[in-house]
Amino acid sequence: MPIFKPIEENDAKGKVKEIYDEIKKVRKITEIPNFWKSLANNPETLERTWTSLQQVMKKGALDPVVKELIYVAVSVTNGCEYCVKSHSLAAKKKGATNDMINEMIAVVGMANETNRLVEGYQVEIDEAYK
Amino acid sequence: MPIFKPIEENDAKGKVKEIYDEIKKVRKITEIPNFWKSLANNPETLERTWTSLQQVMKKGALDPVVKELIYVAVSVTNGCEYCVKSHSLAAKKKGATNDMINEMIAVVGMANETNRLVEGYQVEIDEAYK
Amino acid sequence: MPIFKPIEENDAKGKVKEIYDEIKKVRKITEIPNFWKSLANNPETLERTWTSLQQVMKKGALDPVVKELIYVAVSVTNGCEYCVKSHSLAAKKKGATNDMINEMIAVVGMANETNRLVEGYQVEIDEAYK
Amino acid sequence: MPIFKPIEENDAKGKVKEIYDEIKKVRKITEIPNFWKSLANNPETLERTWTSLQQVMKKGALDPVVKELIYVAVSVTNGCEYCVKSHSLAAKKKGATNDMINEMIAVVGMANETNRLVEGYQVEIDEAYK
Amino acid sequence: MPIFKPIEENDAKGKVKEIYDEIKKVRKITEIPNFWKSLANNPETLERTWTSLQQVMKKGALDPVVKELIYVAVSVTNGCEYCVKSHSLAAKKKGATNDMINEMIAVVGMANETNRLVEGYQVEIDEAYK
Amino acid sequence: MPIFKPIEENDAKGKVKEIYDEIKKVRKITEIPNFWKSLANNPETLERTWTSLQQVMKKGALDPVVKELIYVAVSVTNGCEYCVKSHSLAAKKKGATNDMINEMIAVVGMANETNRLVEGYQVEIDEAYK
Repeated sequence: MPIFKPIEENDAKGKVKEIYDEIKKVRKITEIPNFWKSLANNPETLERTWTSLQQVMKKGALDPVVKELIYVAVSVTNGCEYCVKSHSLAAKKKGATNDMINEMIAVVGMANETNRLVEGYQVEIDEAYK
Repeated sequence: MPIFKPIEENDAKGKVKEIYDEIKKVRKITEIPNFWKSLANNPETLERTWTSLQQVMKKGALDPVVKELIYVAVSVTNGCEYCVKSHSLAAKKKGATNDMINEMIAVVGMANETNRLVEGYQVEIDEAYK
Repeated sequence: MPIFKPIEENDAKGKVKEIYDEIKKVRKITEIPNFWKSLANNPETLERTWTSLQQVMKKGALDPVVKELIYVAVSVTNGCEYCVKSHSLAAKKKGATNDMINEMIAVVGMANETNRLVEGYQVEIDEAYK
Repeated sequence: MPIFKPIEENDAKGKVKEIYDEIKKVRKITEIPNFWKSLANNPETLERTWTSLQQVMKKGALDPVVKELIYVAVSVTNGCEYCVKSHSLAAKKKGATNDMINEMIAVVGMANETNRLVEGYQVEIDEAYK
Repeated sequence: MPIFKPIEENDAKGKVKEIYDEIKKVRKITEIPNFWKSLANNPETLERTWTSLQQVMKKGALDPVVKELIYVAVSVTNGCEYCVKSHSLAAKKKGATNDMINEMIAVVGMANETNRLVEGYQVEIDEAYK
Repeated sequence: MPIFKPIEENDAKGKVKEIYDEIKKVRKITEIPNFWKSLANNPETLERTWTSLQQVMKKGALDPVVKELIYVAVSVTNGCEYCVKSHSLAAKKKGATNDMINEMIAVVGMANETNRLVEGYQVEIDEAYK
């Protein structure tokens, strides 16, 4: 028996209901994903995460597609299946092509390899990088 | 006493010397960074990594700047100081602005947070993502 | 076909059987969890882990509930589903409320985020912390 | 040459200056730690992180000392030196004894070990935890 | 709906088909594992990974069995279920006994524990190791 | 100011002194490394870790050299500098050649890469591995 169950839309009240409505409106979706339904167990976390994500993922110097690809790159590195699946899809919806995702995965693989080559050889930081 | 010392340019021979020359030519630099000097302890690893990185980081569906930002995002997640420092600089040289790097770091922070919210609440995968 | 199968209670002999009996008595449970049944493939690992965990998780300067919450915090960070599920339940049995678990998850999320902000900005250690 | 330099107090303006003043007042310190000075390169990240941390680390169902210990536990798991050093000190200031920190470290060690025993043996989730 | 589907053998063409044939011949298997079928979404990644793995995993100063055990050790540390399952099996096929795998898992557990004891106590590097 | 200082040999008493003497005798060294001096802040952790490490790292189905290489492989993956440096040296003392360490690092790099390719493509587990 899991400790927390997702808070279904019918059971949402007060601030949780408000945020559910905003998520559906902003994201143009009709159903709240399990991520938000789970966070709703702690309304403060739900609100803070929703507000923070909107700020961080909005168009800025970087395109939203690039931000989603970076998001997936981190999730792949951490091995978070839910996050990889949901944000790969989000990347596609925002315009990422399969080629872009393929190349992102290749970069993530190489970075994870070379990060360990650096640790394995205990590479000293070049003067130029200090 | 470290197990491996960087192979200095004066001591490079054969395949190692060839790759050193190629790195300097392709990257338009006059000094080999410590990363390559360390990998040179295993010429096979040096050659394979140099070839692979050129293939993976070349312009494709993704711009080389975006690829460098993804590279740094992974290195930040893994806590690899050398990699963060050297590839942040590489990103800048390829055209990344400080604003772009600031935003990338913000995304990496949020992704690392929400990856753990997913694990903490054991969020189930939505039907739509399967 | 998995390399190792859990050692069922009926098949337990010698030291493994003794430890199974002790686990059931100390933990006041009637069935051995899969974790211990799997470790039983290496009786030395089974015994060492059981002894070590009892020492580390016992009441000390920290309350056993706090220790379980720390345990879950690490498991969430590492993305170990089995560990999150089993130790969240253990925390609850020892008296953790849902509010406590909700707050622990929020701290784990923030710590994982700020750990990466530190790496991203390569924050230098303040004199006061040295 | 690092990409970002800490924003010193004398160079802080507008929102950054306001937050610096608030940090000093709330934390009762006379000097801004490097963490905040680095985040100030992105005023949005500075503000969001400061606001979020105050919300997450405040007294709730969990004592602030316990929250700091959980924070350190995550930072130890991620190998973030700055974070371990600064939050261990924060824990002490809020009342953590050396015994408490010693025990937290022991739990973090064991959790990291058993997380991998679970992965190594591919332990199946017990019916009771589903 | 997943972003990428495995490329089945019947749908493989050109370079992908060639590599599938080589994998089956070299590995003496009749069916391509899902790992390679997934990588085939990016033929460059498929070819590079297949070539690199053959070079890295071949008999050298280390026996192929030892290399597979190291491979599993990393995969256990990263929590990659597919990798643990497939490479544990590969290790067995190359001659690893259950005792060897049991001992490898025990070392991985202890290393993950002591890595964090080092971080928790912020152990300074001894002169002898510098 | 660090929370914990290493317990110097002159200040060691009781159980700590006994274990220091045993470490020097068993390891045939004249000075206690900082790792053990730091753990001595918690005599229980010192004793448990010393006993456990001796059991886990002893000659068994795997050679002690192979066990040290696995230890380093995990430490490289986790980015623990102290652990990489001290256990690489330990591996050498037990007979590892530079070629063996070079090959181990190459395997660690590839495993970290392919672990992420698996996550990136969300590779499904083959029937044969279940």
